[in-house]
Amino acid sequence: MSANKRNLALLLDRPLEPVFYEKGKNNALFEVPNQLLTDRYKNNADIQVRVQDRLGEESTVRVPVRANIAIPNLSVPMQLDRKAPFSLLIPYHRKLATHLISVFIGLRSVDDLQTVAVYARDRLNPLLFNYALSVALLHRPDTKNVDMPLLFEVFPDKFIDSKVIGRAREEATVVTEDLRQPITIPKDYTASDLEPEHRLWYFREDIGLNIHHWHWHLVFPSDGPDQIVRKDRRGELFYYMHQQIQARYNFERFSNDLPRVQRLNNFRDPIPEAYFPKMDSLVSSRAWPSRSPNMKMSDLNRDLEQLRFDIADLERWDARFVQACHQGFVQDPRGNQIQLDEATGIDILGNLLESSTLSVNRDFYGDLHNMLHVALGLIHDPDSRHLETFATIGDPAVDLRDPVFYRLHAYVDDLFQEHKQRLTPYTTQQLNFQGIQLNSVQVQPNRGAANTFQTFWQQTDIDLSRGLDFVPRGNVFARFTHLQNADFTYNININNSTGAPAMGTVRIFLAPQNDERGTRMFLRDQRLLMCELDKFTVALQPGDNAIRRTSTESSVTVAFERTFRDLDTNRPAAGTQEEQDFIFCGCGWPQHMLIPKGKSGVGLPCDLFVMVSNYQDDRVDQDLVGICNEAPVFCGLRDRLYPDRKAMGYPFDRLPRQGVDQLSQFLTPNMTSVPVSIIHTDSVQAIRKGR
Amino acid sequence: MSANKRNLALLLDRPLEPVFYEKGKNNALFEVPNQLLTDRYKNNADIQVRVQDRLGEESTVRVPVRANIAIPNLSVPMQLDRKAPFSLLIPYHRKLATHLISVFIGLRSVDDLQTVAVYARDRLNPLLFNYALSVALLHRPDTKNVDMPLLFEVFPDKFIDSKVIGRAREEATVVTEDLRQPITIPKDYTASDLEPEHRLWYFREDIGLNIHHWHWHLVFPSDGPDQIVRKDRRGELFYYMHQQIQARYNFERFSNDLPRVQRLNNFRDPIPEAYFPKMDSLVSSRAWPSRSPNMKMSDLNRDLEQLRFDIADLERWDARFVQACHQGFVQDPRGNQIQLDEATGIDILGNLLESSTLSVNRDFYGDLHNMLHVALGLIHDPDSRHLETFATIGDPAVDLRDPVFYRLHAYVDDLFQEHKQRLTPYTTQQLNFQGIQLNSVQVQPNRGAANTFQTFWQQTDIDLSRGLDFVPRGNVFARFTHLQNADFTYNININNSTGAPAMGTVRIFLAPQNDERGTRMFLRDQRLLMCELDKFTVALQPGDNAIRRTSTESSVTVAFERTFRDLDTNRPAAGTQEEQDFIFCGCGWPQHMLIPKGKSGVGLPCDLFVMVSNYQDDRVDQDLVGICNEAPVFCGLRDRLYPDRKAMGYPFDRLPRQGVDQLSQFLTPNMTSVPVSIIHTDSVQAIRKGR
Repeated sequence: MSANKRNLALLLDRPLEPVFYEKGKNNALFEVPNQLLTDRYKNNADIQVRVQDRLGEESTVRVPVRANIAIPNLSVPMQLDRKAPFSLLIPYHRKLATHLISVFIGLRSVDDLQTVAVYARDRLNPLLFNYALSVALLHRPDTKNVDMPLLFEVFPDKFIDSKVIGRAREEATVVTEDLRQPITIPKDYTASDLEPEHRLWYFREDIGLNIHHWHWHLVFPSDGPDQIVRKDRRGELFYYMHQQIQARYNFERFSNDLPRVQRLNNFRDPIPEAYFPKMDSLVSSRAWPSRSPNMKMSDLNRDLEQLRFDIADLERWDARFVQACHQGFVQDPRGNQIQLDEATGIDILGNLLESSTLSVNRDFYGDLHNMLHVALGLIHDPDSRHLETFATIGDPAVDLRDPVFYRLHAYVDDLFQEHKQRLTPYTTQQLNFQGIQLNSVQVQPNRGAANTFQTFWQQTDIDLSRGLDFVPRGNVFARFTHLQNADFTYNININNSTGAPAMGTVRIFLAPQNDERGTRMFLRDQRLLMCELDKFTVALQPGDNAIRRTSTESSVTVAFERTFRDLDTNRPAAGTQEEQDFIFCGCGWPQHMLIPKGKSGVGLPCDLFVMVSNYQDDRVDQDLVGICNEAPVFCGLRDRLYPDRKAMGYPFDRLPRQGVDQLSQFLTPNMTSVPVSIIHTDSVQAIRKGR
Repeated sequence: MSANKRNLALLLDRPLEPVFYEKGKNNALFEVPNQLLTDRYKNNADIQVRVQDRLGEESTVRVPVRANIAIPNLSVPMQLDRKAPFSLLIPYHRKLATHLISVFIGLRSVDDLQTVAVYARDRLNPLLFNYALSVALLHRPDTKNVDMPLLFEVFPDKFIDSKVIGRAREEATVVTEDLRQPITIPKDYTASDLEPEHRLWYFREDIGLNIHHWHWHLVFPSDGPDQIVRKDRRGELFYYMHQQIQARYNFERFSNDLPRVQRLNNFRDPIPEAYFPKMDSLVSSRAWPSRSPNMKMSDLNRDLEQLRFDIADLERWDARFVQACHQGFVQDPRGNQIQLDEATGIDILGNLLESSTLSVNRDFYGDLHNMLHVALGLIHDPDSRHLETFATIGDPAVDLRDPVFYRLHAYVDDLFQEHKQRLTPYTTQQLNFQGIQLNSVQVQPNRGAANTFQTFWQQTDIDLSRGLDFVPRGNVFARFTHLQNADFTYNININNSTGAPAMGTVRIFLAPQNDERGTRMFLRDQRLLMCELDKFTVALQPGDNAIRRTSTESSVTVAFERTFRDLDTNRPAAGTQEEQDFIFCGCGWPQHMLIPKGKSGVGLPCDLFVMVSNYQDDRVDQDLVGICNEAPVFCGLRDRLYPDRKAMGYPFDRLPRQGVDQLSQFLTPNMTSVPVSIIHTDSVQAIRKGR
């Protein structure tokens, strides 16, 4: 019997416990041949038997493991210490991960993969192992519908207060499962209201948002075998996904009486923003380092991670990037000019700036975005004299938490705008959809007045038990507080006067009306705050078309249940199309963060913008059978082209045409905008229990 | 049957586990009446039964607990959150501790103490509870020979790399006790050789030294009921114990080609020294905060710890202290002048500067030493906006680890010298011992040449299991590396020409010969580096007296076995005098740190100074029966007067008399000095196994 590919995901479970410990809800036991065991446990048959004895009838699943192939040489990934932290932002770590992913991808069968993974698991750094195996499972054709635990489930320490982990350990040890109580994660554990930046805690520290960001990087590795990196419009997605994070973050800042975030465009200045994550890494048994106020970046020289670059290098890369934008071309290694045109320029620049292996000239344009993360992450120990590791800003699994992330990406986004603002503005002709008139839009929330969005707090229980190593089994729930919005419906009326059926792409954006001074924004500024809420295709019959679209259908978001999915319950039947969708559709903006917080009372005044563009100009012809299509806006479609020919962020990705100062002046007949308000109720309105 | 006082110490064990969990090596179980249980476990009889079932025959000891008294009101100590850090340096925490100590001290019987302690244990902060109960056990007449676990045993997280705790958890869970291996604590885990201050790691992070310092503060609380604070020459001991730490630290710096430590006498300057402790607090499930390079102290305003003072306050207290030294008197609250005379001046100033409740005017002279610790400990979050807690410098259990401790205490010691250097230098008449001639001294190590001290590295295993909460039982050893010295003997020849028997006090000091420039030191500087190695009384018969004294007899040190004592093995029979000594003699400089490291090759050139003074002038008449007399130099004698009438540090506590520039010129006939060398062998010469 060949190995069941679903068992591979079990190897991600409880990453610090030995491979022969029970895994998953069913306490599955891998039967590990002696030669695959690590030296610490090899030739000690008793140790596996003890685990079986302890479990008794609680474990009925046995996973046979073969030892019939030569184990590939893993000395490269083994260079990383078992207890070291691991970050995709560090080139050396990426190199080790690329090596391991290639090994996993290259194995001929699920059987062989299982053998090598079992061998590798307790020998390699658990963070590196989990990342590489996850990427391999996501990208191997024969493991595509293996459902993987969320990063949160196996590394809860990357998402929650270390205090909660300590309390969960007590609860799991002392109290039987039936009597356990959820452990509440306090709302205000990283800072107090004295710190203005802390008003954004619910965004920066949102578990779903951090999972989204990590998941995106899992789906879009910047390094690795070419077949996993080279994805359609990957560089543009890097730009757009992060641009939208910035737009939303600034939107949240306005919701909290804070000005837009300042770009980190001077690498020599002290950085006033501090961050104290108050989380431990269970792998390294070390706390995530903090950053005190007013620290300055320095030249990096750390042998441990093979990092050596100067602040001046970052400045050189900045200068070259901006020069490319201003000249309208980039230079390849042989000195050839590659034009930055309207269609592919942003994609080239995205891969260049991140950078990914798709960069047209990594030696020349460097690694600006990644190295900025790294320089910030190691600001407290640039030459490793204190044997410190990187702070959260240095790891894409946790970097959203730090206020400086948004200063860094405000700068990064501004660099991309150096290109975007040089493109010819869209003409009314380009923007219009001849014969199609968008007459009105109205938002109807399932509670509250029309043309309001309603937000409030919700509490949700999530199970920590898959990530608590060396603790008795059974669920232990953490209860966390997060933003939520009342479901709502868009009612859109479109008139088709072409006399024939037509197809349109509806594009919905939301932006604040006023800036931090309370003044109505010019569109050239407001466009950068335009948050894409939805995009979908409609059939337009001749005459009036009343279109209803609910918020939960958004192609930007994944459903709340998917963000915090429980892989074992409510799961569609094995092998069905529904099951496949269930698994693949993990990537996407979390539904509970669709609408920014807004304000209490009359709320935060916003402009809701809706456009219907001509689908004939937008469509991408490809076979979409069996493809998860839940949240393509930020995540694309697996193994397919990006399903919209327009530039991401269209029509707001470029400056408005001459003479258009306000959104109202921008509108062509196929567009409309309506003033709406986001009204926040500052109390917990719902609890979503863990069982 | 009344309660056994020895069981009280079990309440200090595994501080995070519930009180009804097994305690001590014998898995003793407290039988806790329902009304004493916390709400989480009350009315759930099953939960205690489950513990009994799990242990089965492994637990034969039951400790009955009565619930026959009214529980005193503990709302004051309960103000401190269970998971909060706790520090004796914070006045608010001292207030809570004082309250709880008073409760424990005031209870009428061991029975009542047990009941209240069982009730309090799971309700109060474990750090506060353990401190207050330890002080109570040390000071109650009816619990005086209760042997307490070392702080290291119950809070190993305060002494070792958090990584080791993580590995110990795995070892204890996966591996049966017979197969467990000691977990080695790396020598270089807090910094690398790039950081010059890291050369002193073996001193700052020595487990024995940190235990000594903590133990000293346990024996000499600065606040509490008057009967436990008011100890003979307490303030002078505060001065002298810390002065000797400074002398030794500078000695170690010379051993490592580093200059003497710079005083922290400007509170506005950035502090170049950084410290990254890499330890977790298991109580708060938070890492000990770190201090990045070049941070500056700020005014403190933190409601959480009720701390509010300005840097300017520290400067005012400094000014008043120095003014007192220069004027020769301090001022009490009614404006009366209290003279700072030769006998008691330093004692008054010690209590004033620390400060303790014995301060003659705490309102006026403030709390300089404590608040400097606190301002440094909270340098990263002075207004609590980041909800951060104090770094190691803010807690006397862990403050020796941080390089800034020595800068702070160089400053503190310098303040005391403002008084000391104004005292009239000792005259030759005062120094001499008429008719007694000290002819020679020679040091003979048990390996190596005469007049050398030999130092090397040793590894010792210590059991972590008493402090690993929620982990399967059985020993888990950590192996740490520490300095050690070869035992040696002093051979001292003294001629008594008085014609009658005499009694003398032999005083032995060691200091480096040269300063950081390699220049022979003036005595006015060298005296501050004089490390007291021993002090003892001798009977001098008329004629020549050959005196042999071994290093392990030193009245400065406690034996290695006591520093790392195992309370359950090799213990003298219960109730014997030996047993009482065994328990009481915990306080003292650790034997393995008696001799500074020195240098390899020809070693570090030093002056060994020996003096014999007239015991008739030194002696203190008191009953010493049953008193532990092992290490009185730093610790005094319990419930007795300090056993030497001379000023601590005599004869080097004052400036040398006019005309004396060098040590050789200082010598009267009852003194001698001999050039010696400390030779260090840079390898592990011995391993002391844990079992």
